[in-house]
Formats: sequence, C-alpha cells, structure tokens
Amino acid sequence: MKDDKSDTGWRRKLHEVIYGTHTPAGKLFDILLLVLILYSIIVVMLESVPRFDTKYHEFLNISEWVVTILFSIEYILRVICINKPRKYIFSFFGIVDLLSTIPKYLSYFLVGSQYLTAFRALRLLRVFRILKLVRFVGESNNLVRALKASRTKIFVFVFFVLVISVLLGTLMYLIEGPEHGFNSIPHSVYWTIVTLTTVGYGDISPETALGQFLATLIMIIGYGIIAVPTGIVSAEYASAQNKAKDLDEGRSCPNCSAEIYRSDADFCRKCGYDITDEA
Amino acid sequence: MKDDKSDTGWRRKLHEVIYGTHTPAGKLFDILLLVLILYSIIVVMLESVPRFDTKYHEFLNISEWVVTILFSIEYILRVICINKPRKYIFSFFGIVDLLSTIPKYLSYFLVGSQYLTAFRALRLLRVFRILKLVRFVGESNNLVRALKASRTKIFVFVFFVLVISVLLGTLMYLIEGPEHGFNSIPHSVYWTIVTLTTVGYGDISPETALGQFLATLIMIIGYGIIAVPTGIVSAEYASAQNKAKDLDEGRSCPNCSAEIYRSDADFCRKCGYDITDEA
Amino acid sequence: MKDDKSDTGWRRKLHEVIYGTHTPAGKLFDILLLVLILYSIIVVMLESVPRFDTKYHEFLNISEWVVTILFSIEYILRVICINKPRKYIFSFFGIVDLLSTIPKYLSYFLVGSQYLTAFRALRLLRVFRILKLVRFVGESNNLVRALKASRTKIFVFVFFVLVISVLLGTLMYLIEGPEHGFNSIPHSVYWTIVTLTTVGYGDISPETALGQFLATLIMIIGYGIIAVPTGIVSAEYASAQNKAKDLDEGRSCPNCSAEIYRSDADFCRKCGYDITDEA
Amino acid sequence: MKDDKSDTGWRRKLHEVIYGTHTPAGKLFDILLLVLILYSIIVVMLESVPRFDTKYHEFLNISEWVVTILFSIEYILRVICINKPRKYIFSFFGIVDLLSTIPKYLSYFLVGSQYLTAFRALRLLRVFRILKLVRFVGESNNLVRALKASRTKIFVFVFFVLVISVLLGTLMYLIEGPEHGFNSIPHSVYWTIVTLTTVGYGDISPETALGQFLATLIMIIGYGIIAVPTGIVSAEYASAQNKAKDLDEGRSCPNCSAEIYRSDADFCRKCGYDITDEA
Repeated sequence: MKDDKSDTGWRRKLHEVIYGTHTPAGKLFDILLLVLILYSIIVVMLESVPRFDTKYHEFLNISEWVVTILFSIEYILRVICINKPRKYIFSFFGIVDLLSTIPKYLSYFLVGSQYLTAFRALRLLRVFRILKLVRFVGESNNLVRALKASRTKIFVFVFFVLVISVLLGTLMYLIEGPEHGFNSIPHSVYWTIVTLTTVGYGDISPETALGQFLATLIMIIGYGIIAVPTGIVSAEYASAQNKAKDLDEGRSCPNCSAEIYRSDADFCRKCGYDITDEA
Repeated sequence: MKDDKSDTGWRRKLHEVIYGTHTPAGKLFDILLLVLILYSIIVVMLESVPRFDTKYHEFLNISEWVVTILFSIEYILRVICINKPRKYIFSFFGIVDLLSTIPKYLSYFLVGSQYLTAFRALRLLRVFRILKLVRFVGESNNLVRALKASRTKIFVFVFFVLVISVLLGTLMYLIEGPEHGFNSIPHSVYWTIVTLTTVGYGDISPETALGQFLATLIMIIGYGIIAVPTGIVSAEYASAQNKAKDLDEGRSCPNCSAEIYRSDADFCRKCGYDITDEA
Repeated sequence: MKDDKSDTGWRRKLHEVIYGTHTPAGKLFDILLLVLILYSIIVVMLESVPRFDTKYHEFLNISEWVVTILFSIEYILRVICINKPRKYIFSFFGIVDLLSTIPKYLSYFLVGSQYLTAFRALRLLRVFRILKLVRFVGESNNLVRALKASRTKIFVFVFFVLVISVLLGTLMYLIEGPEHGFNSIPHSVYWTIVTLTTVGYGDISPETALGQFLATLIMIIGYGIIAVPTGIVSAEYASAQNKAKDLDEGRSCPNCSAEIYRSDADFCRKCGYDITDEA
Repeated sequence: MKDDKSDTGWRRKLHEVIYGTHTPAGKLFDILLLVLILYSIIVVMLESVPRFDTKYHEFLNISEWVVTILFSIEYILRVICINKPRKYIFSFFGIVDLLSTIPKYLSYFLVGSQYLTAFRALRLLRVFRILKLVRFVGESNNLVRALKASRTKIFVFVFFVLVISVLLGTLMYLIEGPEHGFNSIPHSVYWTIVTLTTVGYGDISPETALGQFLATLIMIIGYGIIAVPTGIVSAEYASAQNKAKDLDEGRSCPNCSAEIYRSDADFCRKCGYDITDEA
C-alpha cells in the first residue's frame, strides 16, 4: 500500500511536469521540449543540405542521436506516468511522438528512413497546448467550428474540381498533344490543376491558339471557382460567430417585450424594468 | 394481362436495383458501377501514357472493350426498365451514359475518338446520387442556391474582366511588341488574362520598364478584382443560409398557402389566419 | 414652324432607334451595333496576327474601313438626333465612340495608331444598356454600391501594398543583387509585386538561401494580404444587400408592436392585426 | 519670462506648421514633404539602374545630398519644436525619420548603406496623417479593428501552414530528390510554400508522376487553405461594421457610464437610468 502510494507520488509529480502546463516546472518542461523539437527539425534540414552535411557531418549526426535518445526517454516517461497508457499510445500525439524517435534507429537498417524524422514537425503542434493557457483555444474554436461545418461542402467542391480537371485535361491533351509537352492525359490533368488553382508553373504551357483559348477559359473558371471555398468558410465562420453571440439572445423584457441585446443587461433598455428579478 | 404483369414484375425489380439506392442490391449495384467508372477512367489515362501503353497495350485494350460492353448493357437495361425511356435518354445522365459507350465503337473508324471516353468522368457525378442518402444534398442545396443567385452577377463580372483584358492586352502589345514575345493582340490578351488571374506561367513576361510597370498595374487590378466573385458568393451564401433558417422548413399557411417566414409566427402575414390551431 | 416640327419628327424617330431600346427598331439597331463592334474587334486582332495579315491583308483592311465609316456615320447621327449634343459628346460613351473612329483615319499619318481601334472593346459595355431591359442593372446595383463603398478602403490597401513592395523589393535587391537577375531596385520591386500578388512568373527567382527565405515570407504576407480586399468587398456587399432588404424593415405592428419582417405582409404575424389600414 | 514666451511663440508657430494639418502653411508643408519623399525614393531607385546611374551619376548624387540635408533639417526642427522630444524620437515616425537621413552620411564609411534610404518609403505613410483631414481614418478604423481581431487567428493559421509545408516539403524531397532540382529539405520546403500560396515560379517543378500527384494535392490544399484567412477577415470586418453601427457613436450612460448599444434605447441597460432626459 505504502509502496503504491509513494509510487503514485512521484508519478503524479512527473505527470504534472510532463502533461501539466500550470506549474512553473511544467511550463519549463514544455518550453524546453519545443526548443528541442525546433532544434531537431533544423538539424534534419541541415543534414539534407550537401554543403552543411559535408562540413559538419559528425556534429549533425551526434546531435541527431542526442535528440533521438532524449525523445525516447520522454516517450517512455510519458507512457509510465500516465494512468491509461493505452489511450496515450494510440492518441494522435502518442503516435507522432513514437514516429519521431523510430527513424534514427531504423537508419541502421534502411537508407533514407532518417528523413522521416522531419515528421517531428507535427510535434510542434504541441505549441497550442501551452499557449492554450493564454487565449488561443477560445480564439480558434469558432474557426474550428466553421471548418467542421464547411467540411462536407468543401469535399463536394474538391470532387467537382477534380471531375472538371479530368475533362478539361483530356481536352487539352487532344488539342495540344505530346508535341507541346502535354505527354499524356494524367500529365495534362496535372497541368489543368496547376492552371485552375492559379499556381501556373509554366513548365508546360499551351502553344496552339485553340489551346491558349481553352487555357484562358480554364483560368477564368478557376478565378470564379476560388470564390466557392472562400465564400463557404466566410459564411460558416460568420455564422459560428453569430451563434456564439446569440446564445443569450432571444431574451426579451417581461414587462414591455422589447428584445434584450446584451447578455450583461440588468434593466430593459426600453422601459427600465429590472430584468434580474426574472432570471 | 398476366404476361404484362410479370413483365412489370422483373422490370420493377430491375428498376429498383439500377435506379434505387435504398435496397442492398441497389446500393451494391451503385458501388460496383462507381468502381467500374473509376477503373475505366484509369484505363483511358494509362493508355495515353506511352510507357504503359507499349507495355500493357493488349491488357488495356481488352479492359477498354470489357468496360464498354458492360456500360452498353447497363445503358440498354436503364432504357428498358424505366417507364418513360425518352425522359431518361434526353436527361443529362442519359446523354453522358451514351457518350461513354460510343467512343470505343467509333475508334474503329475515327482515330483519337477513344479519348472521348474520358468524358466518363462525368459519370462520377453519380456519386452524389448515392451519397444523397446521407446528407449531401441538404448540405449543398444552400451552395447551389447561392451559386444560382450569383450567376448573373458573375457573368457581368467576367464580361468586364474580358473587356479590360482586351484593352490592356492591346496596350501591352503596343508597348512590348513581337520582339519580346507578345506576337499578336490575341496572344497579348491571353498573357493579360494569365496575369490578371494571377496564374503567371512566365512563358511570356514583359521586358521593357514600361511593360513591367503596366504588368504591375494589371496584377494589382487582378488582386482587387479577385475580391469581387468571392465577395458575391460569400454574401449570397450567407443570405441563402439565413433564408433557409428563416423559412422554417417550408411551412406555409393552410388557408392561403403563403410562405411563413418566421418560426414564431402565430398568424399568417397575408390572410391573418390563425396558424397555431394547425400545429 | 412646320419645318422645325417635321425635323423634330425624324429626329425623334431617329433618337428612338439609336438611343431607345424599347421599340423593335431600337433593339435591332443595338444588336446590329453590338455585332459590328465585336466584328471590328476581331478584325483588329486578326490584323495583328502575322499569319492572318499576310494572307487576308486586303480583306481585313477593307473591313476596317467599312467599320470605321459605319461608326463615323453612327457617331454623326448620335450627335444630330440628340437634344443636348454637348452632353453626349463629353460623356464617357461619347468619347469612346469618337476614339473608335479616329485611329483608322490617323493611320495615314501615324504608324501604329490603328491599333488604338481595339479601344472599341469599351463600346462593348453598351451591352449593359440593352440588357438593362431584363434585370441586369437591378442585379448589379448592390455590387456597384458595394464597390463604391469599398473604394477608399481598397485605395488605402493598395497604397500599403505599394509601400511594403518598395521596402521588400529594396531588401531583395540588396540580398540577391544584379548577379541573380535582380538588376535594379525598380526591377526588384516589380518582382516583389509579382510574388506578393501570387502571380509568380518565374522570369526572376531568388537563388540565395536568404533570398528564398525572404521570398517565402513575402508569399505568406501576400497570402494574408489577399484576404483584405476580399473581406472588404464581401462585407460591403452583404451590407448593401441587407440595406436593400431593410428598406421596409423597422416597421412594427401598431397593435402588438411585433416587428414586421416582410414588406408584403398584410397582417401582423403575432396578433393577426390588419396592418394595411395603417399604411 | 518674456524671452521664454517669445520662444514659445515661434516654437508654437513652427509646431503648427510641421505637425499641424489645419492651417494653410501646415498643409503646404505636408504636401511639400510628400513631394520631397517621393522624389527621394525615385532618386534612390534610379541610382540602382545602371543605365541611369552612369548617365546622371553626378545629378543623382547631388539630389541625394540635397534631400538628405533637407530631411536632417526637418528632423532637427521636429525635435526642437515639440514639447516632449523624447516621445517623438522613440515613436514609429521618429525612428523612420532618423533612419531616412543616416544612410547617406554612412555611405562614406560603408558601401551599400545608401540603399537603406529606400526605407524612406515608410515616410510615405505620413500621407494618411494629411488625408486624415478628409475621412480616411474613419474609413479604415473598421478595417484596422478587423485586422486586430483577426491577428491571433491568422497567426495560428500561418503556423499550421508552416508545419504542413515542412511535412510536405520533406515528402517532396524524398520523392523527387536532388536530381530533379529539390536539392535539400529547406529548398523543398521553399518550393512547397511557393506552390501552396499559388505563386508557382516554375524554377523547380516536380518531374516524377508521384511528385506531380503530390504537387496536385498540395495545390488543392492551398486552394482550400486560402479560404481561411479571407473568411476570417470577412467575418471580422462585417462584425466590426455591425458593432460600429450598434455602438451608436460611443454614447454612454450619464449615470453609470456603461456603453449604450442600441440607438433606440430609452433606459440604461445596467442601472435603469432614463437616458431620454439627457438627449
């Protein structure tokens, strides 16, 4: 019994430091973790730049190992100090945390696997857990609600865009053909999406008059089409905002039945009746 | 009489499978059809890729024929089992269904016609008929209404953009001229639209200082102009959403059948009939 | 007196045909005019395409002259048959109409001036005068109102964008320098605007790591900045729409003081009171 | 005493001319200053164009010196005639004003420092101080409020975009590799942002089928993502507009000084005080 309790003692304390963000130690841990994540991402990036890699190969490699071991320790501690380890292990961050340690170990067996460490970038999303303290979550809740409400509509929209791209891409392939760089239908569909989304690399561009005319059409369609997701998100966001505001609307004065516009009102603005009595 | 009835029997059953989406057999049929459509599109695409075509030409060709024959059978069954075949044949999907079978037959006579099979992509829109079951149509009805309401305005907008493009394109032709790639006025108008829609291939780009200055102007105009369709769709969509909320699910007065706009109404606003009795 | 009257007779008739859009003759005139304008624009465009010009030079030149003479006659008739010729001559369309006839005459003296005939494109805006009959003006009045309300804000916005572009352009010039294609500050500012507006020709692109980092920053700024004009137009358009709707809002039932939501209401929706008596 | 008073006399007058915009002299000063700023920017720009610099080097250099001396005098006068010089010196415009004079002096010691004079562009923002007279500030206050309200959300959004860019950039590096121009992960992340923001230079573009498929995905994500900041700004701007309408020009209760939100209010909503007496 006593053993178990003391165990819960250091486990609870560890839990507070690792998962908590309210104690000074918890904050410090989170900030150190973020710095370490950022550092590890920069190391992976620099490793891929030939100029840096040849110069500082040893240093970058050791850095990588230090970070990997620290991440491994952190992962083990997270699993130990939580009450329901299974829930953490299969959560989004649990999987991301594991994936950010594995690649370096795998690099002994598989060439290229160490680059997967860049998926550590996902760990940066932890920043929101810390900044939660301030006001971020409240701020972005409306946004999240709006994006969720827009989800199906945007999926329908993307589906339409893809169907249109296949059609127009095929047409462009028939008009321009392989001799102007439209090598195949998939390649031509790729070009259509590049044009429709107004990216426009210019690695392929129509050369016949008819092709340029169709390209013009595609651009104008793309210009109109871009309005759709924006319109959806705008409207949904405004609606999520209003809904949050409306929560205590619909109230009206019990004396003169005028609408009450502010949730903090104590008196009716039209007849001066004391509303607080009613609540 | 009996003959006719049994005929109606299998026709009704077939109709249920092919057009219906509520029975398990109907759902299975629709899903198989979607898979077949997707498969046929991939086959047509791969046929256009030289690397694949030389390697698997025989297999792709046979696949094409199998799909075409299956589509032909489906088309004939659709015509047979429906009560008003003419209505189906001349409907949007009727024409699309026919067009997705013809090209392969035509390919014996006309070179290139088999690529038209990519128009089968349009058949993918059938996906909405099946997902209708869930909640898609309700979701996108507001969107459709908003797009319809925006139609004329967006047409006016596109017309303005075209007039501006002709003007600016001509100016650019005069400034840059054929020696910098602006070969002719139509070509120059094409470039203007590429710039105005922020696609920017870079196959042609201004080289004189004056041309670059005008290009800068065109870009900033394009930047401002893109706000217009987006603004229209946003506002129309928000308005369609509000109308849907206000309309109280299509309630109408039982006395004069006028629409009832507010869910808190007790009397019809057109004839003064007491609606509360009905609810 | 009699002379004057008969003169007014044919002048009034001519006025009805040329300026009016309600009589069959007036409609026919407008449609013929539009066809002629479109034809003249196509002729000018084809003239600039070397392939067409060498082949059909004679035909295109004669077409040009015919159109120019017809436009000249039209211009003279417009001046004659209107009561206040000065008002027409100095109006937007008066100037455009004159400018679309002059260049061909000038082409005898000045090389290149005939291309100015492409300004005839502006005459296409006349299409709105005819379609006014239907419902266009009503449709786009809200749009026009929204654009007018957005004008100053968008000017402020464009000004800010220009100031930012000069700053960032200078920075890029210092970072990349002439050896990477950033030949001068104005050229570098041009590149900044190309990037900020997401056009991205690719005729110049940063090659140093620092330059690419700054370019990334500029793109993300541009991505955020594009939200501003769109947001303005969206909000203004929605507000113009609401204002149009609100015109007869603010009305309330004289019996129970409930708000009246539809301008076509005859009875109060809350108490059934006959509102028409009051109006 | 008298000395001090006369000193305050010319200082007050100078202050009125330099900082004021209401007197004719104050307006003239501001306009001359703007012209001078514009002129100095043009001079710096032309200096960087080799063609101009070799031709008019002497003239441009003298212009630069004249402008710098005039700016220095203006800066000194601004410091002298204001009551709290420290407040001005450390204000935004104070620092900008100083920074626009220093570089030319530094150019004797440091090569390239004279280009920093282009930061004079920031001085152009003074234009808003003058136009304030008209109606600009009122116009853009809603905009400023909307942008402030959107700040945190847009920061969250940019952060997400960066995390996604690192992930997708790493993937593209693994798929395409240095042999197709994706030299390193940072370079690849740069490309991802170029694509995601729909800029699309085309200096690097995917060449493998898988790379082009992923690029297509990135573009469509970018297309959807662009809707987010626009939606935020639209909604916030509309909300700022409504708040401005509701706020009834800053009216507040004379009894408890609570804000009065509706222009039709007769009683304070917080203390029940009868506001109509005051109006």
